[in-house]
Amino acid sequence: MRIAIASDHAAFALKAQLAPWLRAEGHEVIDLGPATDTRVDYPDFGYKLADCVASGQAERGVALCGSGIGISIAVNRNPALRCALVHEPLSAQLAREHGDANAIALGARLIGIEMAQACITAFLATDFAGGRHCARVEKLSHPVVSGVAA
Amino acid sequence: MRIAIASDHAAFALKAQLAPWLRAEGHEVIDLGPATDTRVDYPDFGYKLADCVASGQAERGVALCGSGIGISIAVNRNPALRCALVHEPLSAQLAREHGDANAIALGARLIGIEMAQACITAFLATDFAGGRHCARVEKLSHPVVSGVAA
Repeated sequence: MRIAIASDHAAFALKAQLAPWLRAEGHEVIDLGPATDTRVDYPDFGYKLADCVASGQAERGVALCGSGIGISIAVNRNPALRCALVHEPLSAQLAREHGDANAIALGARLIGIEMAQACITAFLATDFAGGRHCARVEKLSHPVVSGVAA
Repeated sequence: MRIAIASDHAAFALKAQLAPWLRAEGHEVIDLGPATDTRVDYPDFGYKLADCVASGQAERGVALCGSGIGISIAVNRNPALRCALVHEPLSAQLAREHGDANAIALGARLIGIEMAQACITAFLATDFAGGRHCARVEKLSHPVVSGVAA
């Protein structure tokens, strides 16, 4: 599978572990940076990752930051993305089965390398269940955004 | 604090526990539904919650579904919202400190009532740290969305 991966500085070391592991698992990895652990803003890398998946360049995305929260919010600004922030494999499985998630977010300061790998393995191995979930996923592609003030 | 709360059918029972608890804690609660546990689509309730917070009607939002993933994606479609999916209080705290989160998402099938309450307590009690985090939060309000194909 063609998998895009991106992080911020706090998750740079985790990205450096996961990218070669994904290649060793037989995937094509598009590393969207950063290239060092110099301080960066996670939204920049979240938007890059979302663009890469939305455009079809990558089939799936792996988004990493300290807690996983900030970058998952950034990725989910793109209505073509369904990025699941997970800390254990059951959530990764449910995100695929029920939500047809096309990206996964992990918190480098919250989970270790083997848990991260277990989450990604579940994410890549699980199929979307379809059925009643289709209409819900479809609604996520056409968000109703109103009343924006702040 | 004025707190909006919304769920899907899978998290209806959790909402029914959390709403009166939040009132007992001294908050004003805006219950956006659903009113029963009849099957609904979580994006509808996520968009309603986001609208309620974005418009200033509520100061904070609590979003609930089976895993928390689906409804958090829906809420985060609104660029005025920063909804943190959390399973434990440290993430809730970090989401406020670093991300100025204005909504929290919880998975009713994944955590119990006391963990949910501990997450919400941390979420409501923690202040935004500001400083270097301001520019990143600002970028989340002005998403760069391009290359949308699918």
